[in-house]
Amino acid sequence: MSNLNCYYKFSNSKIDVVSFGEMLVDFISQKNEVLLSKAEEFTRHFGGSAANVTVNLRRLGVKTRLITRIGDDAFGHFLLDVLNKENINTNGIQIDQKRKTPLVFINKTAGTPAWVAYRAADKYLEFNEKVEYLIKNAKILYLTTFIISQNPARKVALKILNMIKENPKKLLAFDPCYRPSLWSDSKMGKSLVKKIIALSDFIKPSLDDAKIFFGTESPENYIDKYLQLGANIVILTMGKDGVLFSDGKTKIHLPSYADEVVDVTGAGDAFWAGFITAILDGMSVKKAVELGNITAVFKIRGIGALSPIPSKKHLIKFMKKQEASQ
Amino acid sequence: MSNLNCYYKFSNSKIDVVSFGEMLVDFISQKNEVLLSKAEEFTRHFGGSAANVTVNLRRLGVKTRLITRIGDDAFGHFLLDVLNKENINTNGIQIDQKRKTPLVFINKTAGTPAWVAYRAADKYLEFNEKVEYLIKNAKILYLTTFIISQNPARKVALKILNMIKENPKKLLAFDPCYRPSLWSDSKMGKSLVKKIIALSDFIKPSLDDAKIFFGTESPENYIDKYLQLGANIVILTMGKDGVLFSDGKTKIHLPSYADEVVDVTGAGDAFWAGFITAILDGMSVKKAVELGNITAVFKIRGIGALSPIPSKKHLIKFMKKQEASQ
Repeated sequence: MSNLNCYYKFSNSKIDVVSFGEMLVDFISQKNEVLLSKAEEFTRHFGGSAANVTVNLRRLGVKTRLITRIGDDAFGHFLLDVLNKENINTNGIQIDQKRKTPLVFINKTAGTPAWVAYRAADKYLEFNEKVEYLIKNAKILYLTTFIISQNPARKVALKILNMIKENPKKLLAFDPCYRPSLWSDSKMGKSLVKKIIALSDFIKPSLDDAKIFFGTESPENYIDKYLQLGANIVILTMGKDGVLFSDGKTKIHLPSYADEVVDVTGAGDAFWAGFITAILDGMSVKKAVELGNITAVFKIRGIGALSPIPSKKHLIKFMKKQEASQ
Repeated sequence: MSNLNCYYKFSNSKIDVVSFGEMLVDFISQKNEVLLSKAEEFTRHFGGSAANVTVNLRRLGVKTRLITRIGDDAFGHFLLDVLNKENINTNGIQIDQKRKTPLVFINKTAGTPAWVAYRAADKYLEFNEKVEYLIKNAKILYLTTFIISQNPARKVALKILNMIKENPKKLLAFDPCYRPSLWSDSKMGKSLVKKIIALSDFIKPSLDDAKIFFGTESPENYIDKYLQLGANIVILTMGKDGVLFSDGKTKIHLPSYADEVVDVTGAGDAFWAGFITAILDGMSVKKAVELGNITAVFKIRGIGALSPIPSKKHLIKFMKKQEASQ
């Protein structure tokens, strides 16, 4: 068990972070506040939480790999083009010759968007020597809930979870974004997500995630409920209301520093990238949450999940300025 | 065996035509002549050959049903909304609670478009009492190649083909649009399409279909090759070059009467609808091809597969005017 003032030391390793999860194409409605069944025009975007976290980590100078599976099709080629432009090592990316690149359709809205997911190659992610090598050489595993919702990918995820938990020096960062409709057996899904929460070093639910998981409660109660499941560090992101986080002893609230909200898509993924970068740098959990919070501020100033974020140096400078002004 | 001057008599029946095939959402790139992997914006359209033929038949006053399977999702709801607006009986439509509505992504081009198909609920079309009832009560079955490319839907298609062929009074109109990438075993696919061609009363390949099936040949050779496979009536649609059709004895060429080409999407489906309507009305095969040709002329004056077509009365008037001017 770690607390909010803990920091972590890592052995030297070829890889800092492996993200295990989805890379997909988001089709977002061009019109605002339109029902998905009425939306006529869509814009294609790079997406998938694991992929977004990977790109943001790379931008912050982290040695990162992505384990995912896409199709050998127009959309898969588009996603690979983005990774190549971002100078991301694509060693862990599996190309499925039979199945397509997964897609998610989303309506643009100020509220909680409606969405439809087309699962495809992602579900068929395989365990192979490359996956084994990457996991063995990583300091932190970032795992999404999307990828564990369907077999055979789920089985692979559980296998690498075992590999991570066998080695106490490796950390598990888990995004508990449970959505019943992604699971063929949603009860089993919820129970599995609970188990992984208990295994995790860090979880970062959003208010939506918590509401879907526990029903309507106060943010403080959400934190307590995650802790009761056995979570170690819980970071609840609350949009305009900032972040509430806890190690089970203390609860700390940080305001959102967002001055200019253009698009919140991928804000959580940018948060994760800033947070993980700080943990790798030996900052305390508390400082890491601050850096995550600040990284998200920059992301939401631009459109799309991959809108520009500043360098780590700039983020830390901004963080110190915020601290000094308090 | 029928010839081009043949016409057909049908027993009274509750249903004229059953279309067995795909209803799906076409996502067409907004920009012209852009690679599918580079296209950023897409517009959603009603699509699927069997569905387009059904809508056009209904507009021409034919008692028509569609046997297809879609998802219980935003896109399935959109497609059903269109059918309801067109006053189409949706008795034969199966709603899959687990799988999604199929999608096809297409780049807008003056040439042969690139496309990526997301197969989903369509593949899981089931044989049930409704399917049996509809086939038993139909005069003509319109069958697409898309739907036979994947099991379990293929098995259902073969079962209803048997039902149709057991009754010599029922006619089979088959669209031999063979695309190797839709089949898990493309050699088997080609061989199956050949067998169904031999069983069909009418086939209507396009030049693209013929080229993909036989390689580059002259239109006359394409007709001969289809006839050699055992086809009864072959109607080769050739875009701006009109239609070449044959019963094995005579080959007749009709020019395209198209004066205003706005969008050729679904032109073949409009052709089928005009052709089948004429056959049901007791016109000769030759006249029916003329009516099909004319129906397509009106379709391509508008955007989308479902652009307006005139009433049957108007189409026949237009046909008589064309004949008088020759």
